[in-house]
Amino acid sequence: MLEFTTTFRIRYSEVDPSGFVYNGHYATFYEIGRTSAIRQMGLSYKEIEERGVVMPLLYQNFRFHSPAFYDDLLTIKTRILEMPKARITFNYEIYNELGKKINSGENALAFIDKDSHRPLRAPIWFVDVLEKELAKKK
Amino acid sequence: MLEFTTTFRIRYSEVDPSGFVYNGHYATFYEIGRTSAIRQMGLSYKEIEERGVVMPLLYQNFRFHSPAFYDDLLTIKTRILEMPKARITFNYEIYNELGKKINSGENALAFIDKDSHRPLRAPIWFVDVLEKELAKKK
Amino acid sequence: MLEFTTTFRIRYSEVDPSGFVYNGHYATFYEIGRTSAIRQMGLSYKEIEERGVVMPLLYQNFRFHSPAFYDDLLTIKTRILEMPKARITFNYEIYNELGKKINSGENALAFIDKDSHRPLRAPIWFVDVLEKELAKKK
Amino acid sequence: MLEFTTTFRIRYSEVDPSGFVYNGHYATFYEIGRTSAIRQMGLSYKEIEERGVVMPLLYQNFRFHSPAFYDDLLTIKTRILEMPKARITFNYEIYNELGKKINSGENALAFIDKDSHRPLRAPIWFVDVLEKELAKKK
Repeated sequence: MLEFTTTFRIRYSEVDPSGFVYNGHYATFYEIGRTSAIRQMGLSYKEIEERGVVMPLLYQNFRFHSPAFYDDLLTIKTRILEMPKARITFNYEIYNELGKKINSGENALAFIDKDSHRPLRAPIWFVDVLEKELAKKK
Repeated sequence: MLEFTTTFRIRYSEVDPSGFVYNGHYATFYEIGRTSAIRQMGLSYKEIEERGVVMPLLYQNFRFHSPAFYDDLLTIKTRILEMPKARITFNYEIYNELGKKINSGENALAFIDKDSHRPLRAPIWFVDVLEKELAKKK
Repeated sequence: MLEFTTTFRIRYSEVDPSGFVYNGHYATFYEIGRTSAIRQMGLSYKEIEERGVVMPLLYQNFRFHSPAFYDDLLTIKTRILEMPKARITFNYEIYNELGKKINSGENALAFIDKDSHRPLRAPIWFVDVLEKELAKKK
Repeated sequence: MLEFTTTFRIRYSEVDPSGFVYNGHYATFYEIGRTSAIRQMGLSYKEIEERGVVMPLLYQNFRFHSPAFYDDLLTIKTRILEMPKARITFNYEIYNELGKKINSGENALAFIDKDSHRPLRAPIWFVDVLEKELAKKK
């Protein structure tokens, strides 16, 4: 199992009139967690696209435990629980500055050829990066 | 069961570099479906807040069946399957112009006192609106 | 001079904690006005990109006369004051339901080759569409 | 004159199908520069609102010199050129990792009473913070 941690601060534009962070922005927070995880492994999502692979979502689930507010400094933990085959699954947990878990969820992404839009198996160079990271953790 | 239909057009700002609509915007599409459903019953989410009730999400799930593209005119079907008690649950299906279902999901919203942030039961005036709508359909 | 009118409704996600529409969304409103103007002339921005032309902004100015609120049904007037050469200039005015002008501004867009990113003169087929529209108005 | 510097990374959701950062997000970048400037002076925009003051925009101008791309690490310089009276004016310059200036602009914000929505003069405690910062720089 791989786990990565990133922090980010809530922007004014992300809060709605109720005073809570608008629910749609959690998709962007999961993206921040996911792309940071990929960067921490020495790859980047940009590179993945440059190699001709796009990774659209198959599903995405959010559980809202507690609200987030303007200017909060949040921490997202991103986990990869198994080696990707036709898809890759991520788990997310978001914590506020008091250490309270305010949101959790998961999503799965496909590997798609950028030009033909055809589904691919997880590229070998991608799986290699994950395996090297796993080896480091042991 | 109540069902409501609304259409909306994809904005340029909602599409990401892959050429597909960015996944986070589906939260806004569900909101469009939900607020339109409420408006079609003669209420408005604005009025709900003016009566001192905010309705944050408890959970939200998305299944992405097929991508949406810039300038697509999409149709969202919003369903309420049961009378709300401590929470209200909505189901959503999004269709493209060819009638293909491209996305489906559901969410549940709590009823919260705007000032005290305490959970409430579904307000009577809210349940009344749903029941009148149900009676109309019969 | 060409003038086009479009309406749109303010989404919950577009309002910030002050209760006013977040300033950054006016860029999207100008885009709604602009793409609707292009569609009313029988063209679409999608087609423009399919013909290999992208139109990035050169500058964009906003004047905020009065706030907009959640659920407001706004009207945007989009004007083209002169035939485009190396760039096209648009003027915008946004009105609320009381007919009050709440925002005005302008922007200029370049014509860029999608692949080479090189600046182009306004394509002939684009200028033709504008001239036919002008002829109709006379 | 006061000048503050902040960096931020471009998110996937901020890039449009042309491959460039969507123009509307520059409003959020200016907000990042502005709120970071305020935080660097020991205040926060959150505190300002808690003291009953909201600061809506009066105007905002953007000049786009060069595009920004996904994953770019950008630097924004935020300047305050004069002491605020009925309004405060900010200047912004955004640079990419090569040190190229890609965007510049300015905006002015009013001071408004949160409840009455009436215009205020710049609060004394706000001007004090700026003057202490100016004294430090000398």
